[in-house]
Amino acid sequence: MQAAKPILYSYFRSSCSWRVRIALVLKGINYETVPIDLIKDGGQQLAIIEYLEETRPTPRLLPQDPKKRASVRMISDLIAGGIQPLQNLSVLKQVGEQNQLPWAQKVISSGFKALEQILQSTAGKYCVGDEVSMADLCLVPQVANAERYKVDLSPYPTINRINKTLLALEAFQVTHPCRQPDTPAELRA
Amino acid sequence: MQAAKPILYSYFRSSCSWRVRIALVLKGINYETVPIDLIKDGGQQLAIIEYLEETRPTPRLLPQDPKKRASVRMISDLIAGGIQPLQNLSVLKQVGEQNQLPWAQKVISSGFKALEQILQSTAGKYCVGDEVSMADLCLVPQVANAERYKVDLSPYPTINRINKTLLALEAFQVTHPCRQPDTPAELRA
Repeated sequence: MQAAKPILYSYFRSSCSWRVRIALVLKGINYETVPIDLIKDGGQQLAIIEYLEETRPTPRLLPQDPKKRASVRMISDLIAGGIQPLQNLSVLKQVGEQNQLPWAQKVISSGFKALEQILQSTAGKYCVGDEVSMADLCLVPQVANAERYKVDLSPYPTINRINKTLLALEAFQVTHPCRQPDTPAELRA
Repeated sequence: MQAAKPILYSYFRSSCSWRVRIALVLKGINYETVPIDLIKDGGQQLAIIEYLEETRPTPRLLPQDPKKRASVRMISDLIAGGIQPLQNLSVLKQVGEQNQLPWAQKVISSGFKALEQILQSTAGKYCVGDEVSMADLCLVPQVANAERYKVDLSPYPTINRINKTLLALEAFQVTHPCRQPDTPAELRA
């Protein structure tokens, strides 16, 4: 990793890939993107983010205080383990075409309800206090998924506010699905 | 946490609770169980395990080597983020009663197929090498869920072997769902 330029096997639309792209940009790691037209399950990319944190500690994506670190991981796991796996493409396929939209809306809304409540006690400018953390890397891609499935976001003012603040940061913009090598022309922005 | 005896809000059957019980016993932490008849989503309890690891580093549940740590976290996330959330009670309820068993079998089998392949390159005596890690805390409760949903485990010899080895250890036995304060009499062993 220190020697060769790392390769990220990435899919422009995958919220899991996006999380990792943000971490790479925040850590200032110059990486190569190899687009793969394949959706992988679940929250496994958190292992990549934790690995990056351990091998490239600056800037930190986990707070120094163990209790705040636990808050960051709880929020990250809620999104990457409790919401995203229930609305990814392989699950939606299994649910059947006509049930996809209501299914995705239901699992995202019920996850966001829990998330909004947690954020009301942990958030500062960002998910946990005033420093960007792994939790923020998970939040923005998940809100993009929610918008894609037309979830009504008005009941989640804290999620909305943090998401907007984060989307103003460069690391979240340059890694956005609408600006990836494999983004189709009609989805570019 | 150092001062007061910690309380674990636990449900005897929940694989998420079981993972944390094993970590507490391995760390030698005397805790109080408060049974709650409620199933919480997802892999959030990994945040508790990471917190325990940071505040009580001995015995370690994550290897020292960053690449091995990444393997442990990848396996843990595959189980806690890629398998368990797809077969927990709230999802099964949403799937509808007659579809529950085939749904659970399908998501567990497809997760175990990926897991078996990963373990074939990472496993020693346990999931990653010869030391018990967070990955093992995730494995055993998930295999118990597979058995509960009558998943055919014969295609997964590595999963089977590691699970049996782990179930011989005291920390996995005393924390077993069949021996919890809220285990109903007919399920005790």
